[in-house]
Amino acid sequence: MGAMQHELPARARIVAAARHLFSTLGFHQTAMSELNAEANVSVGQIYRHFKGKADIILAIVQEDVDQRIAQMAQLRDQIDSGAITIEAGMTALCQLALDEENEALSFEILAEGHRNPDVRSTIGTLCLRYRRMLRDIAGAAHPGLSDAGLDASEELLLACMFGLGHRSLSEPRLSPGETARQTGRMLLGALRALT
Amino acid sequence: MGAMQHELPARARIVAAARHLFSTLGFHQTAMSELNAEANVSVGQIYRHFKGKADIILAIVQEDVDQRIAQMAQLRDQIDSGAITIEAGMTALCQLALDEENEALSFEILAEGHRNPDVRSTIGTLCLRYRRMLRDIAGAAHPGLSDAGLDASEELLLACMFGLGHRSLSEPRLSPGETARQTGRMLLGALRALT
Repeated sequence: MGAMQHELPARARIVAAARHLFSTLGFHQTAMSELNAEANVSVGQIYRHFKGKADIILAIVQEDVDQRIAQMAQLRDQIDSGAITIEAGMTALCQLALDEENEALSFEILAEGHRNPDVRSTIGTLCLRYRRMLRDIAGAAHPGLSDAGLDASEELLLACMFGLGHRSLSEPRLSPGETARQTGRMLLGALRALT
Repeated sequence: MGAMQHELPARARIVAAARHLFSTLGFHQTAMSELNAEANVSVGQIYRHFKGKADIILAIVQEDVDQRIAQMAQLRDQIDSGAITIEAGMTALCQLALDEENEALSFEILAEGHRNPDVRSTIGTLCLRYRRMLRDIAGAAHPGLSDAGLDASEELLLACMFGLGHRSLSEPRLSPGETARQTGRMLLGALRALT
């Protein structure tokens, strides 16, 4: 990473180094001294940008969610405008979930969310953005849904997206592409079972 | 816990103490000395029963999965025999997932699975048992499913069960009971979208 990292500003180098170290060593097992060595910054520089390790984890979560929400908004617009079929839209949604790259880090962050109220509250706020977006997508995929139906869809889609994005230790049998195709179709059936 | 714990055999006291400490302090932040104090055993007694902390985590996972699989087998038999309707069966399946009590611990174990090959392999083996059982339940709920349909059902049901069992940080809007009722109905619609 060295060469490329030098061209990034210090804050971005710290976040990139933290992504790598937190997911390989674990959040609590990563010392600030390892972080400044890998990011090629001083400890002072880290504290100029972040209050501490938990603050860096929150920055990582924020970056990931912003990117994912933007992709989902694009998908919702494509379904809404008819640019793609509803089934293709649901498949693309599942594919987005399956593209999760930071599973190990995600488990670290979630475990920390059960111990640290600041992390918990950030996760909660970000999940509300996911919920709103999934609700929008459900409404675009099945325009006749009642409010109660949208509530239910939000819950099911969130559970599925989370499970699909965290399945790598579960010995998956189907490829990501085939999984997206099949689960997209099934989720459309699930929405249509509601009124 | 003190009084009750004295009546349990040492091994069970160690596992109960580890459940509590790993989920509140975290796996890596729990020292063996804290574990023997809470379990009221000597360090020697811990090592007589377990090779180390990772071995204790595996015992916890094993206990939880055995219990969950037994509950799912009962459900499959009830669907198979017609003792409950298919929709009630799918709702009961979702309720089982929502009853997950050890979410914090589960994230600790999954994070460790990304670092420790023994933990990873145990999680993988246990997931295969879940997969087989969910496949059976899908077959009982929708007897006409092809092998490809069963593959897809296994993937979707596993993702949903995982997501429903790990939703507590996601600011759920619906109660567990209502979520089970709605997601059970939707998952039945999802299975029926397959042939």
